[in-house]
Amino acid sequence: MRCDVVAIGTELLLGQIVDTNSSWIGEQLAAAGIDSLVQVKVGDNLGRMVHILRERLSEADAVVVCGGLGPTHDDLTREAIAEVMGADLVEDEEVAERIISMFSARGRRMSANNMKQALVPTGASVIAQTRGTAPGLICPVGDKVLYAVPGVPHEMQDMLTRAIIPDLLARSGSSAMIMSRVLRTWGESESGLNERLQGIIDDLDVVGNPTLAFLASGWEGIKVRLTAKAATEDDAWRLISEWERPIRSEVSDVIFGVDEQTMESVVLDLLAERGLTLGVAESVTGGLVAGRLTSVAGSSKVFRGGIVSYASAVKHDLLGVPAGPAVSHDAAAAMARGARHVLGSDVGLALTGVAGPTEQDGQPVGTLYISVAMPDDTVNTHHLRLPGQRDQMRQLSVISALDVLRRTLSN
Amino acid sequence: MRCDVVAIGTELLLGQIVDTNSSWIGEQLAAAGIDSLVQVKVGDNLGRMVHILRERLSEADAVVVCGGLGPTHDDLTREAIAEVMGADLVEDEEVAERIISMFSARGRRMSANNMKQALVPTGASVIAQTRGTAPGLICPVGDKVLYAVPGVPHEMQDMLTRAIIPDLLARSGSSAMIMSRVLRTWGESESGLNERLQGIIDDLDVVGNPTLAFLASGWEGIKVRLTAKAATEDDAWRLISEWERPIRSEVSDVIFGVDEQTMESVVLDLLAERGLTLGVAESVTGGLVAGRLTSVAGSSKVFRGGIVSYASAVKHDLLGVPAGPAVSHDAAAAMARGARHVLGSDVGLALTGVAGPTEQDGQPVGTLYISVAMPDDTVNTHHLRLPGQRDQMRQLSVISALDVLRRTLSN
Repeated sequence: MRCDVVAIGTELLLGQIVDTNSSWIGEQLAAAGIDSLVQVKVGDNLGRMVHILRERLSEADAVVVCGGLGPTHDDLTREAIAEVMGADLVEDEEVAERIISMFSARGRRMSANNMKQALVPTGASVIAQTRGTAPGLICPVGDKVLYAVPGVPHEMQDMLTRAIIPDLLARSGSSAMIMSRVLRTWGESESGLNERLQGIIDDLDVVGNPTLAFLASGWEGIKVRLTAKAATEDDAWRLISEWERPIRSEVSDVIFGVDEQTMESVVLDLLAERGLTLGVAESVTGGLVAGRLTSVAGSSKVFRGGIVSYASAVKHDLLGVPAGPAVSHDAAAAMARGARHVLGSDVGLALTGVAGPTEQDGQPVGTLYISVAMPDDTVNTHHLRLPGQRDQMRQLSVISALDVLRRTLSN
Repeated sequence: MRCDVVAIGTELLLGQIVDTNSSWIGEQLAAAGIDSLVQVKVGDNLGRMVHILRERLSEADAVVVCGGLGPTHDDLTREAIAEVMGADLVEDEEVAERIISMFSARGRRMSANNMKQALVPTGASVIAQTRGTAPGLICPVGDKVLYAVPGVPHEMQDMLTRAIIPDLLARSGSSAMIMSRVLRTWGESESGLNERLQGIIDDLDVVGNPTLAFLASGWEGIKVRLTAKAATEDDAWRLISEWERPIRSEVSDVIFGVDEQTMESVVLDLLAERGLTLGVAESVTGGLVAGRLTSVAGSSKVFRGGIVSYASAVKHDLLGVPAGPAVSHDAAAAMARGARHVLGSDVGLALTGVAGPTEQDGQPVGTLYISVAMPDDTVNTHHLRLPGQRDQMRQLSVISALDVLRRTLSN
């Protein structure tokens, strides 16, 4: 089964918006065992849209069209699909009613344009809108199919998961359930993981189900994804657990979470479980560690605050760091203790390092010291050498520090 | 002149990497007055690459191919282009020598694979590599042209600016110089800017040169870009200044910078000019204001540090905020003064607000107070109501606060 993707919008071609939708769709299709071999961006031009849709349909079994379902005169996806189907556009009463009731529920005035969104090509079926005013469309073209979804990411994602992937699987004649488990890792390269899991990968190649994939996700680490196909959900999960176990026993040292967990959510959960509060002192990352922890709603339950000690005087006067080099084992340890005391937290996490562009105190760009001060005021300190220029080095420092804290709390 | 874009890489289709290269290329082409009407992603498969390149060349005057120039067996762009050209691949001595000397200069062992990068289709010319080992290629196909560039963004960007845009302009028979000036704005919607500049936009429509474009850049604000074409660089700049002046006089209140300036670089420059240092106290943004300021190399000259006062006790004990609601005019003002005193800075910037998911102290999600304390300890405080969910609200808060600081320093 092959499903190509077409993203609609002149703003995508002009670089005003980056097309992240087709990447997301590609990831979901791959996880469902469906090939997506060509993905295209085309502007809001009826002739070119029709041409590209025909081109993609001539090669793929199915095409997802993303965007161009809005109410303005630039939104031409409905018209393009009707032309490809050789069908008329007819107002769908149910869709129209849903649009009218959405506007009245929000107390907003509806313009005549909005009724354009109730037009459906004859022969197409509707994916009901639950979040926005535009419904999705399932449009048969001969023995192939075009799916249309809005370009708003959360509306698109909802319709793809709820309606399109199940429809594609049904069309492929597969009544199988497909389930995935993602193991999130930090601290091992992709080739390193590959090497350590080689025996299991070879075994999986023989059985063919589940499949295993590595997804390198930059400074979010590397995801190891197991995807199983089976007659029932339970059977698929059983297959996954059977293989998750040996994978975990090979690389348990680098797995920090599963599925939607992030390093920051895992650290906050560990603190909450142990009834501990956290304070952070950071210089090289300049507030990014605190910024990332507080991106999690509810972090205020355990996160008390942070000190960004950029100037040396702030380190000395506020955190009580003794005189001496600011990027050092001793400075990091004193910062972690200082964070605990000044912020009144149970645990203190501190980072000091060199992000560049030039070295500092004789330490090269990429130097990082991480310290964790525990409730009994004992401190452990780690020294790392990270790659990358300023931005990358700072982002790697954030996740490295959170991982050190996670390991300390897990012990 | 029309130039389509093809991005090569199975990882792009699987959503492991988002294709930002073609967006960037599209933006540069548009600024040079070249249309880019279709942009395609295709995997590392020779047959499909050849097919897609032929398809794009049949419609466009030129195609930029991005990626697939590496040294591994997956890197097939050279082979695909040779097939489309009907040409042989031959080792280019100059390129080979440059690769060998790059490896020896870095003291790294060169594998035999790397010589693959010296292969050039007969009839193609080389865009010399200055940063990586892969050269770019300019490949005539009949009266059309294929350009190949590496997928590494900074290598691609260098070659596009240095060689491809000038070559495209030469081919289009235009000896014109194209120059752009970007005015960066914050605080006015796209439709608002459009309305205020309508008279100038109408006049520009009549003269046709320079052109004006709005680029909405999310929480970086809206860019107003003037692009002029003229026989010489000087003439192009003269045209731009002539029109920049009336634009500035219409919307001077929302312009914060030009070209590559960012809100944070502008604020840091203003502080440096006035010989002032800065300290920040933030709760709702949890460190993001400090994180953004310190993303600028050299920020340590004026930025002393920050306090992330997430827990109320940190606000009271450390910053001296009086008892009472934490999201309020008085709390923000006390935080700004507290930041000055605790961090020993000349100026204090403070933010307190509600990022959600739920209201706080009876204040709805989106509430934001921003205070600036000046060297004489006078404070001015602003109250905003921002849209968006947690992440968006926090990011809007960061740039809003920096803009308030900028306006205060500019007065």
